[in-house]
This record gives sequence, structure tokens and C-alpha cells, in this order.
Amino acid sequence: MAPVLICEVGPRDGLQNEERVLSVAARVEFVNRLSECGFSRIEVGSFVSARRVPQMADAEQVFDQIDRRPGVEYTGLVLNLKGAQRALACDADRLNCVVVATETFNMRNQGKAVADTVAELDAVIALAARASVPVTVTIGAAFGCPFEGLVAPSAVAALAAHFASAGVAEIALADTIGVGVPTQVQELFALVSDQMSGTPVSIGFHFHNTRNTGIANAFAALQAGARVLDASVGGAGGCPFAPAATGNIPTEDLAYMLDGMGRKTGIDLNGVVGTAHWLAGQLGRELPGMVSRAGADWCAAT
Amino acid sequence: MAPVLICEVGPRDGLQNEERVLSVAARVEFVNRLSECGFSRIEVGSFVSARRVPQMADAEQVFDQIDRRPGVEYTGLVLNLKGAQRALACDADRLNCVVVATETFNMRNQGKAVADTVAELDAVIALAARASVPVTVTIGAAFGCPFEGLVAPSAVAALAAHFASAGVAEIALADTIGVGVPTQVQELFALVSDQMSGTPVSIGFHFHNTRNTGIANAFAALQAGARVLDASVGGAGGCPFAPAATGNIPTEDLAYMLDGMGRKTGIDLNGVVGTAHWLAGQLGRELPGMVSRAGADWCAAT
Repeated sequence: MAPVLICEVGPRDGLQNEERVLSVAARVEFVNRLSECGFSRIEVGSFVSARRVPQMADAEQVFDQIDRRPGVEYTGLVLNLKGAQRALACDADRLNCVVVATETFNMRNQGKAVADTVAELDAVIALAARASVPVTVTIGAAFGCPFEGLVAPSAVAALAAHFASAGVAEIALADTIGVGVPTQVQELFALVSDQMSGTPVSIGFHFHNTRNTGIANAFAALQAGARVLDASVGGAGGCPFAPAATGNIPTEDLAYMLDGMGRKTGIDLNGVVGTAHWLAGQLGRELPGMVSRAGADWCAAT
Repeated sequence: MAPVLICEVGPRDGLQNEERVLSVAARVEFVNRLSECGFSRIEVGSFVSARRVPQMADAEQVFDQIDRRPGVEYTGLVLNLKGAQRALACDADRLNCVVVATETFNMRNQGKAVADTVAELDAVIALAARASVPVTVTIGAAFGCPFEGLVAPSAVAALAAHFASAGVAEIALADTIGVGVPTQVQELFALVSDQMSGTPVSIGFHFHNTRNTGIANAFAALQAGARVLDASVGGAGGCPFAPAATGNIPTEDLAYMLDGMGRKTGIDLNGVVGTAHWLAGQLGRELPGMVSRAGADWCAAT
């Protein structure tokens, strides 16, 4: 069966909503630990306003200080041209750009109408192409929006088709608030695939486990044919003071399932569990990842 | 699409491993609250040794005091002939019998070799047949055993075939320690179905969410064709002092997924969430069910 690429987003999505802000040195150590685990893609940070997201300040320093392991893509998240310029100056191996599928949420997240974000990202894609850096566009709230409700799959597919024609390497469909169910995943994958047929653009997914459907959605995505899944070590993310906010699907839980299914990921599961324990110590709280608590090796006889 | 029968096992599997022992009155209130939520099957308790499982003491009193709603099956778990006699004396609507798939675990759980438990359950099935009471046989550790490792699907299927020929109404395949993955669920369902083809025996599943695969396994079971799933309100169960022990899949999380998939369950999701909050108060701890924390209604506009 086809291998699965797990994009480890812990240093970015995992940290950006945590109450405790990690130092540059701790973030560098985090990325280096992940490199040792065998990930082939790690999202190192985001190039956004340090005032708005202090957890992601000094992304340049993090990029500068990490040990880059050959064969690993070190990616940066950007929302606009300025962020892209910063990321390219750091030699990010890939840019991950975000547009939110609904007007209200995109305005709150990026301060722009969707059409204006699309135009800005078109400029980012052109800039990255000149630097020969591949681009992923993540479409946020692709399943549901806290302000506008269910999101029409056709609206998501239209955005995906636009970015495919603009030359992105990959589209990631994000369940930003963790409301999707597996049949939605399958329907959205089918529609987006259909809209992009004939292009070499790959389709990935980004799930949050807010309502306990994240791992089921990941399974549904793999069944549908997706080959790229975002996950975060320990399931870090969300805010400990907002019970309804939760993190990405935990990498160790996803990797445990994939191992059991015989799907190759190249990841050392015990290394991921060790990194999750380290991260919990750094963040000063228990993380939701379950394999890190229950153990991947479950038979006393082995 | 075919409706899904959720068998609510909170009053039995949910409570039997909790540190805090609920009074008979609280257990009666729990069952009555569940009846109000629209479940069509509720496992009220187990008829086992009160010395070994004090949480389940006085099951007769619970059965005697609950309000029985027409159309709801109130079931009792039994491990042997004596338990079956007690359950039938309480007018239990169904008996749920347990055999564990591996010798070591069955010996620890029931103090017998597997063959001896099978012989005992054959007598239970004959007794229930004379009373016209349907029997479910749950095959424990059907995916993995903490003492013997991975369990051969053929061994589980052979047990299922035996009980099908003995006249059970239903076989439930239990991932007792929460180690299974979705592809295992699909393979086991296919093999057990094949062994029981030509019989009217239905196949259900009983998942624990110990390694975060429980809801994905439930989705895989439904896709394979299962129509009965056990779940526990709030995901109660396990022991708060043993981090590796966790409860059943939370009923509200399963019901949320099924609602989103358009699968009918007959269950009032908000009622289940309210019952989970009530139960958390009774048990004096936060329960793992995620929809109860995040909310089933996620759009501010609705």
C-alpha cells in the first residue's frame, strides 16, 4: 500500500495556541527532536505578526538554528506576501499558505475578504515559483465555520481548483474547528479530486480532534486516497483555558493506527512518544495524545 | 441507510471499573435518564460476584427499581449459569454473556479455561431459550490480549461459529484493551460473517478508546456492515489511577458522528450530553467524552 506522509505541525499549530510561550531554544530543540523521529516534513513555524501570535515570534531564529537533516522538508506557514518573503529568506523548503473558506472566519483570521486573500496568495505562489519552492495551500474551515455553519463542498472545491490552476503543489483541506465526520471527508475528497483531475496537485487533510472524530476522519481520508495528513505530537494545541478548543490529531495516535494497518510512515513511534512526553514537560500540562499515555507496546509478553 | 443500534453500556461497563461506587439509587436514576434519551438497549448491570465487583452489587435491586420504558431492552451481563438465573429472575430482556478469546485472559477474568466457559455458556443459552430471552455472546480480547498478544481472527471466528450454532441472537466482538485498528475490524467482520453465513445472528462491536482508535474502529465497523455498537455515556470506565486503562467509546461522540453521517440512532444527543454531565458529577471526575465538553451545536449562528 502507498506510504503516508505525516506532516508534523507541532512546532507551528501545536504551539501557536498554547498558553505557555516556548523560547527559541526550546522550539529549536523540538524541531531537532522531530527530525530524529524520521518525519519527512516538519512545519517549523509561522511568519505572522509577533504581536498577534507571540508563540511564533522570531521564526527566523528558529529556522537559522535548527539542524537540517537531508531529505526532510522544513516548512513555514504564511498568510501574505510579507510572510512569504520572510520564509523564503530563511530557505524554507515549502510554504504553507492559508485561506479560510468562509468570509466571516477569513476576515477574523486574516483581516481580508476571501477574494483579497486569494489575490494575495496568487502573488505568493508566483514568488515561490521563481524561487522553485513548492507551495501548499490549506483551505481552513473546509467542513464547518463557527460563524457561518456548514460549508458547501462546492465552495471549497472551487477554491482548490483556482489554486491548482495557479500552480500549487498541494491542497490541504482543514477541519479547523473539528466538526467534520468521515462521510464528509470522503465526499469532499471526491469533489476536490474531480475538480483538480488532470493536475499533479496532491490532496492532504488537516484534522482537529475536537469532537473525537479526528482519527476516524484520517482513516476515511486514507481510504479515499489522501496521502498527506497533518498531525501534532501529543495533540498539542488549543487552549487549556477554553475547554472547547482542542489540538490537532495526535501524531502518535495516527502513527499507531497506521502501523497497525501496515501503512508505512517512516516514523519511529517510540521516538514520537518520547517527544510528546518532553513537550508535555515544556508546556507544563498533560497533552491529549492517548498512545503516549497508554503505550504503543501493549503486550506484556513482547 | 440502515439505522444503527447503540447499546448503552454505561451502567455496566462504564461503572464497573470506576473508583467511586454508586448507590443503587444513583444507578437507577442513571438508567432512567438513559431511557429518556431514546436508547433502545441499555445494559443495566452485571450479575457477578459483589465481592469481586462491588460496583455491580445488588443488580436485582437496580432492575427492580428502574422505570421500564416500552420498546427498550434492559439487558444484564452474565458470566455463568448462576448469573443467568439471577438475570432471568429479574426479567432481563436479554443476556449478554462473555467469553475471552485467549486462555490466559479468560482464566484471569472468569477463572476457567476457554472450553469450560464455552460449555457453561452453552448451558446459559439453553436456559435463556427456554425463557425465550435472546442472548448476545461478547467475545473479549478479540483483537489483542495483554498476556498473549495479537489474537488470531480465525480463533475468534471459530468461537463465533460455535455460538451461532448454539442459538445466540448476536455476537459482539470486543476490543477489550483498546488496541485494534480499522483494517482489523474490517477483516474480523468479514471472517466472522463468512463463518456465520446462513444464520440470522447479528454482529456487533464493543470498542474501548484506549489508543484513540475507537471511533475510527466504529466507523470501519459500520462500513463493513455492523449495525450494533456498544458505547458508554461520557466514555466512563477505566480507572482514574491507572493512566493506561480507559473507558468505552463515548456515546455522545459516536452519536455525533452518526448524526453527521445521516445514520439514524433514535437518540437525543443533547440528552446524552446532559446525562454525561450528570454522571461526571456522580463520579466526581471529568469524563473523556469530547462532544460533552466541546458541544454538539458548534455554530454560533444556529
